Amino acid sequence: MHEDTTRSIPTIAETLTRRGFLRGAALAGGGALAASVVAACAPALSSVPAGWTYGPTVGPVGAAPTAAPAGSPEASHDHGPAASGAPSDAHDAAALAVVKRFLGGEYGQVDGAGGQPIGAPKLDGDTKVFELTIEEMQHKIDAVQPPVSALGYNGMWPGPRFDVIEGDKVRITFKNNLPESTGVHFHGQRLPNNMDGVPHVTQDPILPGASFTYEFTARNVGSNMYHSHHNATDQVGRGLLGAFIVHPKDPAKRVAQRYGVTQDIVWISNDSLGGFTINGRAFPATAPIVAKVGEKILVRFMNEGNMMHPWHLHGMPMHIVARDGYDLGAAAFTCDTLGVNPGERWDALIDCEDVGAWAFHCHILQHVEGRDGMFGMVTALVIQDAASAGIERASGATSVVAAAAAGGSTAFLCQIP
Amino acid sequence: MHEDTTRSIPTIAETLTRRGFLRGAALAGGGALAASVVAACAPALSSVPAGWTYGPTVGPVGAAPTAAPAGSPEASHDHGPAASGAPSDAHDAAALAVVKRFLGGEYGQVDGAGGQPIGAPKLDGDTKVFELTIEEMQHKIDAVQPPVSALGYNGMWPGPRFDVIEGDKVRITFKNNLPESTGVHFHGQRLPNNMDGVPHVTQDPILPGASFTYEFTARNVGSNMYHSHHNATDQVGRGLLGAFIVHPKDPAKRVAQRYGVTQDIVWISNDSLGGFTINGRAFPATAPIVAKVGEKILVRFMNEGNMMHPWHLHGMPMHIVARDGYDLGAAAFTCDTLGVNPGERWDALIDCEDVGAWAFHCHILQHVEGRDGMFGMVTALVIQDAASAGIERASGATSVVAAAAAGGSTAFLCQIP
Amino acid sequence: MHEDTTRSIPTIAETLTRRGFLRGAALAGGGALAASVVAACAPALSSVPAGWTYGPTVGPVGAAPTAAPAGSPEASHDHGPAASGAPSDAHDAAALAVVKRFLGGEYGQVDGAGGQPIGAPKLDGDTKVFELTIEEMQHKIDAVQPPVSALGYNGMWPGPRFDVIEGDKVRITFKNNLPESTGVHFHGQRLPNNMDGVPHVTQDPILPGASFTYEFTARNVGSNMYHSHHNATDQVGRGLLGAFIVHPKDPAKRVAQRYGVTQDIVWISNDSLGGFTINGRAFPATAPIVAKVGEKILVRFMNEGNMMHPWHLHGMPMHIVARDGYDLGAAAFTCDTLGVNPGERWDALIDCEDVGAWAFHCHILQHVEGRDGMFGMVTALVIQDAASAGIERASGATSVVAAAAAGGSTAFLCQIP
Repeated sequence: MHEDTTRSIPTIAETLTRRGFLRGAALAGGGALAASVVAACAPALSSVPAGWTYGPTVGPVGAAPTAAPAGSPEASHDHGPAASGAPSDAHDAAALAVVKRFLGGEYGQVDGAGGQPIGAPKLDGDTKVFELTIEEMQHKIDAVQPPVSALGYNGMWPGPRFDVIEGDKVRITFKNNLPESTGVHFHGQRLPNNMDGVPHVTQDPILPGASFTYEFTARNVGSNMYHSHHNATDQVGRGLLGAFIVHPKDPAKRVAQRYGVTQDIVWISNDSLGGFTINGRAFPATAPIVAKVGEKILVRFMNEGNMMHPWHLHGMPMHIVARDGYDLGAAAFTCDTLGVNPGERWDALIDCEDVGAWAFHCHILQHVEGRDGMFGMVTALVIQDAASAGIERASGATSVVAAAAAGGSTAFLCQIP
Repeated sequence: MHEDTTRSIPTIAETLTRRGFLRGAALAGGGALAASVVAACAPALSSVPAGWTYGPTVGPVGAAPTAAPAGSPEASHDHGPAASGAPSDAHDAAALAVVKRFLGGEYGQVDGAGGQPIGAPKLDGDTKVFELTIEEMQHKIDAVQPPVSALGYNGMWPGPRFDVIEGDKVRITFKNNLPESTGVHFHGQRLPNNMDGVPHVTQDPILPGASFTYEFTARNVGSNMYHSHHNATDQVGRGLLGAFIVHPKDPAKRVAQRYGVTQDIVWISNDSLGGFTINGRAFPATAPIVAKVGEKILVRFMNEGNMMHPWHLHGMPMHIVARDGYDLGAAAFTCDTLGVNPGERWDALIDCEDVGAWAFHCHILQHVEGRDGMFGMVTALVIQDAASAGIERASGATSVVAAAAAGGSTAFLCQIP
Repeated sequence: MHEDTTRSIPTIAETLTRRGFLRGAALAGGGALAASVVAACAPALSSVPAGWTYGPTVGPVGAAPTAAPAGSPEASHDHGPAASGAPSDAHDAAALAVVKRFLGGEYGQVDGAGGQPIGAPKLDGDTKVFELTIEEMQHKIDAVQPPVSALGYNGMWPGPRFDVIEGDKVRITFKNNLPESTGVHFHGQRLPNNMDGVPHVTQDPILPGASFTYEFTARNVGSNMYHSHHNATDQVGRGLLGAFIVHPKDPAKRVAQRYGVTQDIVWISNDSLGGFTINGRAFPATAPIVAKVGEKILVRFMNEGNMMHPWHLHGMPMHIVARDGYDLGAAAFTCDTLGVNPGERWDALIDCEDVGAWAFHCHILQHVEGRDGMFGMVTALVIQDAASAGIERASGATSVVAAAAAGGSTAFLCQIP
């Protein structure tokens, strides 16, 4: 069907779904090896083929200097004037360079992935005990932009992901290593008022050097959050935010059994001091979601920013089953674009039925694409066919973490109870 | 009930519903004749009556110079200082002038209505074949503002409206006559990944001078779209967008039979490079929706812009039955104001029960009214009584186009299968 | 659990729920007495205890000059540079000062509470007759900022709250005392077209000095509004807006009987010329909602501004039962954060189950918290325990106004039919 006869290479999507998207990057965890593995996977993309011209006014694109090497500062979107050559040529070269960085596994190559599982708690009787620090940090939202001066829980942005069980008694101590005071609000949890985390209203501020312990029984199942509630425009904007997931006490009601979900993915957006990010990263350093055809996955959208973002998944629809942790019941609906307002959480089920690399992005175009290609709130859902040589997932819902460690994207994943 | 005894003319609403709103404009298709017909329809409005004063500080309004003639540049909203005279006088005169332009059928007088039906396809076996061009164009959003430098499918903004049937095999070739590359995404359609239209991810960019053919089976019924997915902030903002409607295979499930709808109206909003527009036009050049009392109509809201717009219909409520083409089922609801986020589509049924001219506009006031009256995202639902001398609609759902051609607004209308 | 050993005072929440929040302020209606009563209620908060230090770099906070006295201009949020001392110290002192102003009953101390009940109509046969003026006014959104040049219905911002019964014949005359023309639209009501209030479309503008009478039968039950529909960006932004509630004809369907609601609260947000306000006031001059544990209350969110606001209630969820006055039925849902777009109205039921002071605010952080603490779209739901010495509510739904007058917040309340 292609009438553009200059086309001679497989599409990226074809490469991805046949070869095991990002396998090398995730396996190695190191930039150099990952790059070489990806290069081996997609050799046709590692240089611009001579037969692929971008516009009528310039010479062979093989000589075009505008496609900066992945990882170089020149590859970033600065919205400045495009490089020399026809506009289309310059734009396309820059746009391709950014996509190649994504393909090259930039997510795995940038230190400091946020939202990693908090890990097993200590036990004090039947109370689960967690300890976190709040501290200043440098955070990279992609490989080429200078790090932002950020704030983190345990040095992470987003902070560690909690997965507890309904009815759990939890005790969470935050040690404030910032030079300013703070407070932590568990957004969506019902708890005693003095545990609500609003300085000057329900507690004193947590002073620099001091600690505060929140202790409560996890009552609200579903997709909840924790974040600063003090000087919050600044503190949340700079990274004091994280996911607090409460799974139902009855295993039959948990998403793995109830829906047959094999991946339980947190998707926290932010739009303030670190730019337009998904889980603290901007395209092309966002983590792709990788699934086998036939998998069903859960995406928990959480908006910690200050703008509404309408998330659009290409290809397949999303089945929206919960809002702010509450089952929608008869009010559940299906859509392909879901506006999520600040503070809201929405649970989306996706049946991964169609093989391919499906763009997954905010549909406010200024948040995703500029003169030099895509940036910001963009990632992809990569659905691999059964014969793929890529990620081999162990069977069973409880082994997702292990499977992810063996080649998947670990950014979003967590052991599903 | 009017205690303002200076009032001596019928309201515009009274005129509209008695006389056949915009009949002349739509009949003639030409500015001069249309203007004369409208003048004949509403003579009382074609000049300001001497007895109608606007404020206490100025002389007879008949002499007021601030109401620019319809069609003159002075009638546009420039948000600059109001003309001489009391503020109220200047504002009211300007505001009235704009309304008169709307009444005068400015929609029909401006060349280049967008969103017209694509027309019958060629057939290649059982495949419906369409061919479009992508090209630069000059587009007028109203009669008085200079045209914007736009991009169009087949020289239209919005591009031609598609109406196909579920299960149709479609083949759509786009010839790129732009000086830059592009790609076309069928937003909301499930299709093979290499037909998804994301340059560098699922295909190569469509280079200047080249063509690309999308071929797929229409699977997703309902209100869908097609638009550029390359340099999209610019390209979609400048007009590369259109409606792609898929009607159910079973005629009983189509809106005409299922809901008794006699008009199937696309309402695409945009808010970028061409200003605040509905179907590519800003008030007063927007097309009114005209219905007979007792009709039921369908409005398909589609947001191709980058801001949420809350659409408010005066008078009657809207029954929201589908989201992104998916039936809402038990989640259907009734409202009079509907927020539509970028990329979303919502289907609204309206029972045209109450005769009159009902404002229909975005409720973000900065998108609709300024110092010189209404502008931008405003139109009206005009419901005519049975005795109206206006639009005579032939009976039956399939004759809407013919009825529209005989006097209705053709901007939104399409033959309902 | 507090490891910050410097803490020695009860939290504000503890004080509030034990002592009767704002009782004095509401009782007295006058600033001086109210202040003294509140001081008596919460003596520990009226000065900063010597043992409570804010940061490591400054001396005892008792001497800190940055906490301006409640009511002083210095206490306002000007987003300028923070005062001397460590940033944390300056921020916390300013933030505390603002909270103390809220606790001190600033709502009751500022003249000009808006949204008060319109009162009993005159009767002309079976028609309820109301008369309002439209006039320029000075409006204070809090105690310390200079008043804004506003417009009001009956000198109120929001205008008086209407509570009528389904089927009521109403006649409402507006006398325009402005130097500019206007028109009044009853947003959400179905009425004759010539009563729709759109100047130049359904009526002539109401000229300065003139009057216009709207007469219609109240058909649409639920949470509706009235506001200017002329030069509206300016006029609505400056205060020409109000609540128009229509209660069902059948008492069993009214919220008091249907849901067991004991408080029927209007919550109109605006975000234009008067800043980020709830019912015309900005934090700390917003009215708190005060309830006894076990009460069920109704909040009618109405957005008269031009931005979406996602309202987040701490602690308990909200059960959303109606949209634009229409029952959601099976589409009802539960949430803790509710995005409300301009022009929309949503009815939220809240079961006041958990004692405490629960923050209730917009989750767009720039609308609620700045460098000097909270401001704008913030209030609190204060739930008192049964043993509270505070507000004594008379039993029965019809006595809410009396109870409120005896100590509650009257800003939101209205006699529930």
